[in-house]
Parts: sequence; structure tokens; C-alpha cells
Amino acid sequence: MMKPINVGLCGVGVVGGGTAVVLKRNAEEIARRAGRPIVITMAANRNLDRACELCGPDVKLTDNALDVVNNPDIDIVVELIGGTTIAKEVVLKAIENGKHVVTANKKLIAEYGNEIFAKAQEKGVMVAFEAAVAGGIPIIKALREGLTANKIEWVAGIINGTSNFILTEMRDKGAAFADVLKEAQRLGYAEADPTFDIEGHDAAHKLTIMSAIAFGIPVQFDKAYLEGISKLEAQDIRYAQELGYRIKLLGITRRKEAGIELRVHPTLIPAKRLIANVDGVMNAVLVKGDAVGATLYYGAGAGAEPTASSVIADLVDITRLATADPENRVPHLAFQPSKMANLPILPIDEVETCYYLRMNATDKPGVLAEITRIFADANISIDSMLQKPAPDDRADIIILTHLAVEKNVNTALTKIEALEAINGKVVKLRLEHLQ
Amino acid sequence: MMKPINVGLCGVGVVGGGTAVVLKRNAEEIARRAGRPIVITMAANRNLDRACELCGPDVKLTDNALDVVNNPDIDIVVELIGGTTIAKEVVLKAIENGKHVVTANKKLIAEYGNEIFAKAQEKGVMVAFEAAVAGGIPIIKALREGLTANKIEWVAGIINGTSNFILTEMRDKGAAFADVLKEAQRLGYAEADPTFDIEGHDAAHKLTIMSAIAFGIPVQFDKAYLEGISKLEAQDIRYAQELGYRIKLLGITRRKEAGIELRVHPTLIPAKRLIANVDGVMNAVLVKGDAVGATLYYGAGAGAEPTASSVIADLVDITRLATADPENRVPHLAFQPSKMANLPILPIDEVETCYYLRMNATDKPGVLAEITRIFADANISIDSMLQKPAPDDRADIIILTHLAVEKNVNTALTKIEALEAINGKVVKLRLEHLQ
Repeated sequence: MMKPINVGLCGVGVVGGGTAVVLKRNAEEIARRAGRPIVITMAANRNLDRACELCGPDVKLTDNALDVVNNPDIDIVVELIGGTTIAKEVVLKAIENGKHVVTANKKLIAEYGNEIFAKAQEKGVMVAFEAAVAGGIPIIKALREGLTANKIEWVAGIINGTSNFILTEMRDKGAAFADVLKEAQRLGYAEADPTFDIEGHDAAHKLTIMSAIAFGIPVQFDKAYLEGISKLEAQDIRYAQELGYRIKLLGITRRKEAGIELRVHPTLIPAKRLIANVDGVMNAVLVKGDAVGATLYYGAGAGAEPTASSVIADLVDITRLATADPENRVPHLAFQPSKMANLPILPIDEVETCYYLRMNATDKPGVLAEITRIFADANISIDSMLQKPAPDDRADIIILTHLAVEKNVNTALTKIEALEAINGKVVKLRLEHLQ
Repeated sequence: MMKPINVGLCGVGVVGGGTAVVLKRNAEEIARRAGRPIVITMAANRNLDRACELCGPDVKLTDNALDVVNNPDIDIVVELIGGTTIAKEVVLKAIENGKHVVTANKKLIAEYGNEIFAKAQEKGVMVAFEAAVAGGIPIIKALREGLTANKIEWVAGIINGTSNFILTEMRDKGAAFADVLKEAQRLGYAEADPTFDIEGHDAAHKLTIMSAIAFGIPVQFDKAYLEGISKLEAQDIRYAQELGYRIKLLGITRRKEAGIELRVHPTLIPAKRLIANVDGVMNAVLVKGDAVGATLYYGAGAGAEPTASSVIADLVDITRLATADPENRVPHLAFQPSKMANLPILPIDEVETCYYLRMNATDKPGVLAEITRIFADANISIDSMLQKPAPDDRADIIILTHLAVEKNVNTALTKIEALEAINGKVVKLRLEHLQ
């Protein structure tokens, strides 16, 4: 057996604790695979008691992560601090010191990945981040290595467990968003401040990373379109179901001729698709490649041990790849740094997708004719329509469109909302067939 | 851009043709990922016209695969001949000549993998076989690299598209096996001689390979238990559905204390599991790891371009890994050759699973008491029971058991079949909860 790989663990929280526990519990199994033991020899945490309890008495402890990074005996630094202040400093310093890095920090990679990878490239070290996207699902590896033969057409993922749990409960119980959110908070599936999860930030971080790897573009989180689930109404979930669809918070990135779509929003998807049946806190990512067709990857998107599973897979990968010529290693963003594409990220106005539109109208002759005329004028063709009685002798009209450009839809909706027979705003949700 | 990798393609059939087409169509995309062009420079095929048409005029052609293997300019040999005669000779000779090998040949790997990998190890070359299991799904990579942190508990897969298509049609149309088989043959989803697919051989080859990688054991195809779908009756699919289950031809390999279960057979699985909703010719593999929990991988299990997707991913992998120290590369069967386990494959008699048992009984008092007594004596506990009227004033009794050892079930069934009130044989199907 070759000499052990010495790991320095920065951050012994949920995932850090899980990493320490799994590395110890499966030490033999992991060494049999990696060809050598992989051992945490030093750890940094604000709470040293917790670190000691989880890492054991043989691990050197510090409350300063930079001590880990500056320790010459450490081969790989694992950054599980989170955020983009200390974490960023730790990662950059580790790279500067010639150490390989493993991180689960989606925010750091989605927002500062370009800078980090450039520095890693310069120093000839690897920065691995499987745990940053979809927890325990090896989706980075699939995209970056498993599907290298393909021109990727699009990636669509349920990549935020909190939102998926809430949507599943809303559907199953017909409950309102606010009530289910409270339940999710009680169960520990949602934070006290749930904004980051329910408004799509978390999903957009993960999507940004997948988009870069799928298409060979730099990470560009600031250009992602975000729309959360907090305004979603129970009746739209019900209508969608009647029409044969389910609503999921989907992250979608698609290659178009003019550029890349990068967007997170509630999305109707056909109920018969496998991904429509991914419920509760589970995650799944659907990838469409030109050669392989659609492939799907499903599993736990969060949690101590599932995320640790990805952190440790990265440790094994680095152990295996460390001796390869740096220019032959797997590139950070799948494509060689000199071969990145400069396709622009398309603004949401330019996105082309299908739409679910719900409007409340006075139930009188001619209204439908006015509405359909507006759509025809905006070059939007209608796929199907559903009319339902609503309170006060009015009607809910639900229209599903074929592919249409967002700005055309918005123009049409402005005109529809100006009609005398229309009550209030039109509810607009996007719809993807995912085929 | 570095010097191209020269690929020698042996066999330009369906997958070989797909490989040539995709390598050409996505040449730029692939080179951007791999860091250098990957080009077929020589091809062997019995039909030289077809080879020329698919590979183009710049590719050197031969009708003798050994010419490819002996060409010093070839870096990687792709074996897509199939079978275990010429294909085996080609692979072993390529290894002997110090060339890396990519193959889609599940039969060759499942039956001769140990010999092939030992020789590759000795010569310091890689033999990659992602395309041998589940077509375009990167399941070998997931098991071997993505889940290295885990003690794998079990792997269960729908890994034969022909059988899954037949079972899906039988369920949807309530049709008999023989009729659906004819339909599948007409559509090209089943061969003229369908034995290999419908009797479980193909699935068992793939399962054998996954089992070796999951548990770090040598490939042992001869010890796999095989039971196909040709005897499955439409009424059992119907009863299963009534009880909340679907019947799939499942390959299952599970680690038990005494050894490894390795079996392919029709299996009831809860309808609400994602894998129960994998229909038609699609494949999916569910993997249970101790840290990550259950993860699922879904996609096209066959076809020219999906399989080519895996062949080419292996080519890129070898290109990337070729310069790593041989002892640091990803081991062929996930675990270091010196660290393989010698857990035995358990005979089917020792397998522990749940059962669906259907018996036809005279509808008279006391019969159920006799039956349940026999189960109790054999230490088999009953999970649920369904009684349905059958022709001639008789009844179909369906019993689902909790976990039981196969030999105990067989003993009980022999006794039940000997009862005067029981008509004919008891139908026995296995049931897995997959949790």
C-alpha cells in the first residue's frame, strides 16, 4: 500500500462531519479503490469540541482554516466552510500553496469559478466540486466525463430539495404555499430564512455550474434568470394536473443558435416523464445529448452523508489523477481552458419555450375571440385551452401555447390584461416538454 | 493542439458505424474536451464497402482485425466485433502489443474479464468497457468513480430493453407474451432468435460486470442465476398491478454477510418507485450505497449512437488518463487488483427476498388454514393476501411474503402443491422493495 493521502478538512459542519464519518467508516473500502489510504490529518473548525468528536483524537485541530492550507504535510484541502469570504481566501491560498482542493461550495464556484480555475490551471492543481451540484448524485462526472461524445443540447434539473418538497406537498395536499413552507420549516427541510432555496438562488448556482460544463462556457451566475415558487398558487398546480402536467422548480440551460438559455423557474412538465415523478426532497437531472439522447440522474441532493459521498469521490479522483500530466487531466469545466466558447447567455426576453397562461374573464360572448386574436397577432400558436367556471359568474381560461419567444408572450399579455373583460393579471408559467 | 489519438476500429456494424459517425460529427466538441483530436485512422470489417461509407476515404481499411491490432501507429483499439472468439483474440493481441482497448462486448467481459484485465495490468494498458453495460448510460463510471466513498449494498437494473419493451406492452395491452414478442420482432426490438434477451443472458452479462465493480470481486458469469420472462402470464402482471406492483426483468446483485447474490429474474417492484416507471426499451440502474443512499441512472440501453456515446467517452478517458502512472489509474474493476474480495456468489437456494405466490385452489373451508400453516412451519411470514374467483368454482390465492430464504419457500411450495385442494403448480415470482 502506498503512502496515505493527507487531507486537511476546513469546516466540520453537517457535510464536514459526514465526510469525517464516512472516510473513517469506509476507510478500508476506499483504500481498496484508491490504492492508498485517504486520511484526514488536520481539521479547522470554530467549534473545536465538535471537530474533535467527529474527526477523532489523532487529527490535528485548529480554529483557523489558513493553518490547514499552510501545513506542508497536507496534500488535499477540503473546503466545507461555505460562503464566499473566508472560503474563497482558503481555496485561493491552498491553490497558491500547490495543493489540490475539493469543495462543496456551489456559491463560490458559480460566482468565482473562473478566477479559481484560472489560478488552479496556472499552479497545476485540481479543484474538484462534485458535491456542489445535486449532493450525492455524480452529475458533474456524468456531464464532464460520461457524456464527452455528445454535443449537449440541454440540461434540466430538479436541484433544490426544499422547493421540491414544498411543491410535492402542495400537490398532494392541495395546500397553499405558506402553509407548506411552515411545515417544511418544522421538519427541517427549509431554513428559517428560506429565500435562498425558494426563490431559486441555490438552484441557479447549481445550474450555472452545469451549464458551464455542458457547453464549455465560463460560469456566469449574474446572467441567470431566477424566479422562485413563493407566488405559485394551488389552483395552478391543480389545473396543470388536469392538463396532464406537474409543476416543478426546474433549472434549465439550453444551447440555442444565438446563445445559451440559463433560467430557474416553476415549470410545467408532462406527468408521464420520469423526472415529473421525482418527489419530496429528492433531486434529479435530465441531460439531452445529441448522440445518447436523454439520460437521467437521480438521488439525494443534500444531507451529510450523500454530500460527503461526492466529496470523497473527488478525493479518490484526485488521488488517482494526481500523477497524470496536468494538461491531460479532466479540465475543470470539461473543456480545455483554451477551448472555451464565448456564446452569450440569452436574456429571459429572448428565451423560447411553451407557456401556461391563466386569465380570469367575464363569461360573455366574444372574449375568447379577442384573446385568440391577440395571440395570433403576436405569432403565438395555441396548443390547448381549458375553460373553468370561477366565482362571480366569471371563468378561468387556461391556455397552453406552442413554442413562443418570451417577449412576444409578454406583449400579448399586456394587451390581454388591457381588455375590459379580463380581471387582474394573467398568470404566466413556462412549460417544457423535455424530449 | 497536441498530436491526435489514432483509433483502430474493429467491427463497423451498428455500434461501430455509430462510433464513426459521432466521432466525425462531434470531432470539434470532442477535441475541445479531450485536448487533442481523436480520429479513426484504420478500420476492419468484413464488408469493406460499408466500412468505407461510414468511416470515410481517409481511413485505412482491412478485412482482418489483426491488421489493426498489429499496426504500430494505432494508439487505441476499439473492439466492436462481438462474440468471444475473434473478439477475444483481437483484444488479447492488442493488449500484448501495448495498446489500450475499448470494447462494448458484455459477453467477452463477463466471461473472460479476469483473464483480460490481468493481462492488461501486466502490460500497463487500460481496457475500458462503459458501452458493455446499459448502452449510453455512464453507469460503469458512476459505480467505479462516482460512488467510491460508499460500501455498495446492492445494484438493481432494468438492463435489457427487449424484455422491458415486452413487459411494458403486456401490461399496457393485457396481451400474452407470445403475441407481444411477435410485435417486438416486427418492430426490430427483438431478434429472430430472442432467447439471449428474453431468457436473461444479456442482462446477466451486464449484471455480472456491475457486481464485480460494485463489490470488488472477479467476474463470475457462470454463477449467475437466470430466469427469463417467457413463462410470465398476463394474469400475474394484472394481479401485481392490483397489489400496487409492476413486474420488471430485474438484474439484482446484493452483498450479504455470507456472499453475493447475483440473479436475473422477473421481479415485482412497488409501482411508486421511479424505476418501476421505466418503460419501453429504456434502461435504468438503481444503486444503493451506504453513504449516498439510492441513486438512479436512466437512459437508452442500446442503439447505434447511445452505445457510441459510451465508446467515445472511454476513448476520451483513456486519452486523459494515459499519462497517469499505471498504478494510479482507475482500476478495471474499481478496486485495486491486489485488493479484490473473495466473497462467494450465493446459489439461488440461499437467496433471501420477498415472494409473490399464486395458487389455484378449490374454494372450500379449511384450505387457507392448511396453506398458512405450511408457511408458518417453514418460517415464512405473510405480508398480504388476495383471493380472486377463478373458473370452475375455484379461487386464485395470491400471497405476498416478507423476506424469506428461497429454499424454505421451495419446501413450502412442494407441500402446498401436494394438497388435495390445490390445482397444478404454484406460480412463484420474486419481489423486491428496493429501498
